[in-house]
Amino acid sequence: MTQASSPEGALRVIPFGGLGDIGRNMMLYEYGDDAIAVDAGLMFPDDEHLGVDIIIQDYSYLRENPDLLKALFITHGHEDHIGAAAFLLREFPVPVFCTRLTRGLLQVKLKDHKLLDEIDVQVVEPGQTIHVGDFGVEFFSVSHSIPDSAGMIIKTPLGPVVHTGDFKIDHTPVMGQHTDLTRLAEVGREGALLLCADSTYAEVEGSTPSEQIVAERLEHAIANAPGRVIVTTFASLISRVQMVLDAAVKHDKRVFVTGRSMVNNVQMARDLGYLEAPDQVLMSVREMREHPAHKTVIVCTGSQGEPNAALTRIANGSHQHITIQEDDTVVLSSNPVPGNEKSVSKNINGLFEAGANVIYNRIDNVHVRGHAAREELKIVHRIVQPRHFVPMHGEYRHLVMHAHLAMQLGMPADDAFVLEDGDVLEITADGADIVDEISADYIYVDGLGVGDIDHVVLRDRAHLASDGMLVIVAAVDRHDGKLTGPPEVMSHGFIGPDDEAEIYDGARRIVVDMLGGEAQSVNWRELHDNLKDDLARFLYERTHRRPLVLPVMLEV
Amino acid sequence: MTQASSPEGALRVIPFGGLGDIGRNMMLYEYGDDAIAVDAGLMFPDDEHLGVDIIIQDYSYLRENPDLLKALFITHGHEDHIGAAAFLLREFPVPVFCTRLTRGLLQVKLKDHKLLDEIDVQVVEPGQTIHVGDFGVEFFSVSHSIPDSAGMIIKTPLGPVVHTGDFKIDHTPVMGQHTDLTRLAEVGREGALLLCADSTYAEVEGSTPSEQIVAERLEHAIANAPGRVIVTTFASLISRVQMVLDAAVKHDKRVFVTGRSMVNNVQMARDLGYLEAPDQVLMSVREMREHPAHKTVIVCTGSQGEPNAALTRIANGSHQHITIQEDDTVVLSSNPVPGNEKSVSKNINGLFEAGANVIYNRIDNVHVRGHAAREELKIVHRIVQPRHFVPMHGEYRHLVMHAHLAMQLGMPADDAFVLEDGDVLEITADGADIVDEISADYIYVDGLGVGDIDHVVLRDRAHLASDGMLVIVAAVDRHDGKLTGPPEVMSHGFIGPDDEAEIYDGARRIVVDMLGGEAQSVNWRELHDNLKDDLARFLYERTHRRPLVLPVMLEV
Repeated sequence: MTQASSPEGALRVIPFGGLGDIGRNMMLYEYGDDAIAVDAGLMFPDDEHLGVDIIIQDYSYLRENPDLLKALFITHGHEDHIGAAAFLLREFPVPVFCTRLTRGLLQVKLKDHKLLDEIDVQVVEPGQTIHVGDFGVEFFSVSHSIPDSAGMIIKTPLGPVVHTGDFKIDHTPVMGQHTDLTRLAEVGREGALLLCADSTYAEVEGSTPSEQIVAERLEHAIANAPGRVIVTTFASLISRVQMVLDAAVKHDKRVFVTGRSMVNNVQMARDLGYLEAPDQVLMSVREMREHPAHKTVIVCTGSQGEPNAALTRIANGSHQHITIQEDDTVVLSSNPVPGNEKSVSKNINGLFEAGANVIYNRIDNVHVRGHAAREELKIVHRIVQPRHFVPMHGEYRHLVMHAHLAMQLGMPADDAFVLEDGDVLEITADGADIVDEISADYIYVDGLGVGDIDHVVLRDRAHLASDGMLVIVAAVDRHDGKLTGPPEVMSHGFIGPDDEAEIYDGARRIVVDMLGGEAQSVNWRELHDNLKDDLARFLYERTHRRPLVLPVMLEV
Repeated sequence: MTQASSPEGALRVIPFGGLGDIGRNMMLYEYGDDAIAVDAGLMFPDDEHLGVDIIIQDYSYLRENPDLLKALFITHGHEDHIGAAAFLLREFPVPVFCTRLTRGLLQVKLKDHKLLDEIDVQVVEPGQTIHVGDFGVEFFSVSHSIPDSAGMIIKTPLGPVVHTGDFKIDHTPVMGQHTDLTRLAEVGREGALLLCADSTYAEVEGSTPSEQIVAERLEHAIANAPGRVIVTTFASLISRVQMVLDAAVKHDKRVFVTGRSMVNNVQMARDLGYLEAPDQVLMSVREMREHPAHKTVIVCTGSQGEPNAALTRIANGSHQHITIQEDDTVVLSSNPVPGNEKSVSKNINGLFEAGANVIYNRIDNVHVRGHAAREELKIVHRIVQPRHFVPMHGEYRHLVMHAHLAMQLGMPADDAFVLEDGDVLEITADGADIVDEISADYIYVDGLGVGDIDHVVLRDRAHLASDGMLVIVAAVDRHDGKLTGPPEVMSHGFIGPDDEAEIYDGARRIVVDMLGGEAQSVNWRELHDNLKDDLARFLYERTHRRPLVLPVMLEV
């Protein structure tokens, strides 16, 4: 058990995350007896996390210090920043502070977890400051790929901390939200204690292009398409949906929205006033069916090749309402998130095979990133001029490169801290250092289970996935130790039907040979292990596969 | 059964491949009673092909026409061009024609399959023509990422076919092999019937940079590193290994080679004279241990993040001989192949965490591609001026884009054929058309099994991978239909140990409730199905997971 013990006059900074996306998912700031968390995001499982739905943080440090956490602040509404909030809040029902759209998205999650009435979620405007213990947290607006994104200026007795959240610098943002460089410059002039900044694109030279470029290319595609235009993007990328709607209105086309999360987000964004979508522009599925193709635009989910999303079903011909027809144009206004390259690629190939013309980022500028590249990061470092720096949000290599960038701009190497999850950075008036390491593991959520899946379960799943399993069941008479009949064999995921009979016969023979002889004075454990080994050896010799072998012997 | 029936005076072209890499893996050319195959490559399994080792072509068409295939021609020694050759040749032991290095690589495979003495593999030099039936196959040299790559000019009574194989146009290749544009221009002037050309980079604008750029950057890295330099690349990329050796010699460093395929390839390439590696430059593991770090270069496998390859083990700290130390520089002279992005990324992060400086393609030009981009493709189209065009080697979208490129250069749309695997393109003096479709499926190889794994087995594996399995075994007295004792339960990959007891109890209760009552007049099938349904429902309610449920009832 680790005691929270922020000494008098010290600020402690602890990133929680995992899977290399350090600090993306939750950052804890501690001063005296109080802590605030910034963001509580989920991580998406990798291929190795078979069957795992999502991955969240390990809250055991907070459990060991149950009165420590006083509030949760959320920068914006993306899953990797709000997706674990319900899991955190059901254990620690602290008040939450965020902007309006983020609140809308969070409340959907709280409702799913039946926490809507339990948790107080307060809307904060940029410029407003929330006081919690010795902290004063001021929100400032940032430009990112979802509206209402914010960074935080966390005022502490030692000086202000700038926590950027995810951001880019876009001088012509489509929905009007700039990164507030002016406010950051003021903080810098007054003297910033610490900068914690987005590192996602710290390996990309130059600057991220403006959303404005995408608006032009999307309009071009919609204006010039000979038939329907089907656009997919992230459901949370409201500004992109707005661009499509604007282009449709301008060119006298109507829009059909499909895919559960896209429909929900469009609805929510309209209700909260983040999306301007005149009723006569949106159409129902019935209206779409009768609407001329060259006047039809479809906005759908599936930009990441998710197996059941709308675009994937359109691409493989299994969508209920939409079949690719001549002159269809499909626009993927998105990039594949690392790990999704193949499934996105498969969709693009499927759409071409079905006869569509497909436009994607490799061949036209129909997507820009939501994160700052190196030249933008330099601007922030230059104007904030922090005393200390913690790169956050990114894989380990991005953090290292971001730290190098800070040093290139003149920061002494021992003021830049590449933290790992659970590292406790302690900052006092005299300096900063990593003083401790707490448990900041990751916790697998699978179905209803939170944390019961461990590496043993995952190893078994990997074993089953690779070679399947074989069960052999024999009943043995308790009086004479003899088999009461031929063993039953069954397998799944192991071999095809043609070879089954022969392999099963061989497996039965091994059991009969071992058990079928004279009466046994049986050491069951030993027998079981021998049987398992012999069966495994036989199966490997015959197939060069290693299924999970389960011999079951019943004494009857 | 499909009869090979190339009518008098017709050339038939049939691509075999699968998984979207159309025509990459094998192309069949048929004229009269004779067919020749060009390449016989393997495909690597996707995530969905759980446990599958490799994927090869379906040879049932050749089986149905057993005397059709007369020879196999191979363009170069990459796995996706030679990896299935042994499977093809063990059924159809035809003579093979290829360049010298390709022969060396093929013979390793034939030896593994105990076919070395059965198969006649003849070395062909560029410019040489091999006659098979009405075909005359002339090899021409091309520039690609393995030495001794060739394209083929396949002379037929209808005119010559240009089959490029994989290629790029490199005016300053490191190992001296240019793409023979002069010969292609001659063929074009005489009138080419058909062009089949590499489409892998048909979506990339411009030209692929020369290997020369990589040579410079690699030398820069090796010359300026403060400590050891660890370079990884594809084991077949002999020219890249040569660059490293050259730079090491120039800067008075010595080289240790590690990783099985790298060691084998370096050995083979030295034996055949493709790699100049003075004995005093290479060092053993013992020599390496005592050699000064700043004079040490290591060349290793693992550029794709393969789980057991050298670099992966170095990155996760499990390599037998090499532990990352201060001032190590790691160079990834390679790009991740689609699907490997995450594992490569994980290695890079691990190396940074271990303290290495890592140089990879995103941050320095330490790799160039081996395929022609659009401007290079245009050159080939322009000088070959084919009557017909078949884009090959690439995903479907690349084929479409390559066909569009041909049309942009003036080819009529109905002379460019985007073929799918198994499509039979028939070309006569009058024109060309797709006239038939044969079975050109893909066949999974898993362990010793070729083709026994089908979609049912893969579906079971996916099911097991996602939620694991639960077996429950009960013995029932054949006289009174009653349970002889409590059922046995076991599971794998389903739940963690904490919840096991409770879930198992619940499952047992369901069996007891169904079987434990009064004597049954049992419909075993029905009972089994009901039990399975009830168990599945119970397990889902309690866990929201759907393991494979296997109830086994033994009558005793």
